[in-house]
Amino acid sequence: MILTVTLNTALDLTYHVPALTPHAAHRVTEVRERPGGKGLNVARVLAALGRETVVTGFAGGPTGALVRELLASPAQQTPAPYDALLPIAGPSRRTIAVVDGTTGDTTQLNEPGPAVTPQEWTAFLDAYGALLRDAEAVALCGSLPPGIHVGAYAELVRRARSADVPVLLDTSGEPLRRGIAARPDLIKPNAEELAQLTGAREPLRATRDARRRGAHAVVTSLGPKGLLALTSDGVWQAKPPAPVRGNPTGAGDSAVAGLLSGLVDGLDWPGRLVRAAALSAATVLTPTAGDFDREAYESLLSRITVTESPTPS
Amino acid sequence: MILTVTLNTALDLTYHVPALTPHAAHRVTEVRERPGGKGLNVARVLAALGRETVVTGFAGGPTGALVRELLASPAQQTPAPYDALLPIAGPSRRTIAVVDGTTGDTTQLNEPGPAVTPQEWTAFLDAYGALLRDAEAVALCGSLPPGIHVGAYAELVRRARSADVPVLLDTSGEPLRRGIAARPDLIKPNAEELAQLTGAREPLRATRDARRRGAHAVVTSLGPKGLLALTSDGVWQAKPPAPVRGNPTGAGDSAVAGLLSGLVDGLDWPGRLVRAAALSAATVLTPTAGDFDREAYESLLSRITVTESPTPS
Repeated sequence: MILTVTLNTALDLTYHVPALTPHAAHRVTEVRERPGGKGLNVARVLAALGRETVVTGFAGGPTGALVRELLASPAQQTPAPYDALLPIAGPSRRTIAVVDGTTGDTTQLNEPGPAVTPQEWTAFLDAYGALLRDAEAVALCGSLPPGIHVGAYAELVRRARSADVPVLLDTSGEPLRRGIAARPDLIKPNAEELAQLTGAREPLRATRDARRRGAHAVVTSLGPKGLLALTSDGVWQAKPPAPVRGNPTGAGDSAVAGLLSGLVDGLDWPGRLVRAAALSAATVLTPTAGDFDREAYESLLSRITVTESPTPS
Repeated sequence: MILTVTLNTALDLTYHVPALTPHAAHRVTEVRERPGGKGLNVARVLAALGRETVVTGFAGGPTGALVRELLASPAQQTPAPYDALLPIAGPSRRTIAVVDGTTGDTTQLNEPGPAVTPQEWTAFLDAYGALLRDAEAVALCGSLPPGIHVGAYAELVRRARSADVPVLLDTSGEPLRRGIAARPDLIKPNAEELAQLTGAREPLRATRDARRRGAHAVVTSLGPKGLLALTSDGVWQAKPPAPVRGNPTGAGDSAVAGLLSGLVDGLDWPGRLVRAAALSAATVLTPTAGDFDREAYESLLSRITVTESPTPS
């Protein structure tokens, strides 16, 4: 099975309003509820691809209970990931995306998440260790909730490597900086996260800098321009045939699902990148993270171009 | 006991953000959760005043469960109202108040509420009829959830009057217009709701117009200027000694609690208005609806001035 870790699970709410006016009262015309947190999105895409998938991390309070309920009943007729989330005392967070019907723009409000106690963290480490025994690969995804030390992902990377389980880290800021130093097999930053980490704006330079910090491979998502991969085997760029218009939320999580499933299937780097880029573009075509347009995905698989760069990695 | 009806109960969330910028992502620095909907606020103030209070209406789904849990455990050491809310299939709504830390202004996002079925409405009418038997007064408060016909409050007013229970109606728009025609004992609009109903902006004129539409008495809240009452016994204005600065959310609900408890205690109109104006001002001093500053309330009781107007009612 493939394991995904979401320490800061969320209930993702999408609110549609005719127009967002600061300091006014708004009647929300449409409400959508989804299980959220990057690792849950990755797991839902993996499960939809038919992969045996297990989610772990934390879920607490009535919001955590609702997240688990939604996770167990996917909207489409796809299998649900296996739920190995640990119950905690603090309530899981909500995130709210307010979509302005006039401009189409989104305003995001993210609750910080529950205060995880040291005892809960210790219990998680035990559960994580046990789950690693059956894992073919593991993805560590998203922000850290309050109370968890900033080196937490570094610790989870080290444990995965000790257990010989390939580990992908997808986070940002200081947890990413610390996590890279523990030498994960793969990180998947976007251009913004990479610039924040390295100070470099040019993607190839920033990607190379990130790899030097300790990641064995770096796959940078370039938005509509596809993916850039720096690995010990070479440098590649994967591009969709044309930029896809839609909602980019969750596109990065689907890329993670593509990379992980490709790794487990023994694909070479170009093969993994085609899958990741196709899933990513097919996710932009759907309104919510953790979903993708299956028909578009299958059609894109033969239309993603991968070019190898002569640049030394 | 005093009965309050909240057909569209809510989980009231308050989010603090450093500054609200449309189309940006925000980290919420503080989250507060309260049981909400006007009737629940009225009931919490009544219970804090030591009145035996029963809440009814609808609560559904995980959000409804959380509302009931919060209702049962008041923040301060005050008694909780008795919970006679009816469980329904649809999930209760959330309301979100986003407080901008730079300007102090609030942006409000209100979910519409659950779709109540005709069967659920019928079950409610039975429960309401049974509760009226023990009620000394009833308050019908707030918006109607989807699926409930716009004449619902008119029906609840008629049933209360048939049962000889004094009934206060506090809503707005078409449900208010229809409800007034059923001749409630009292309505408590604010200047905005009154202008919407009557087309008149001048408070005395608009209040008189509202009374002509069928309400036996009208108490209009004038914000910091206090309350204006038109009754069959006379016309009064109740004023706090000085405008109170703070958060006006819930001030109107506290006025309802003052008016209802005063009615049940057999106070005359000036006595009821003093209590309502004092509770209302003491609520502005607290950050959340359904709470009031008890010390300020007790001190204000002797400092509210009530003047009788010679204007014929």
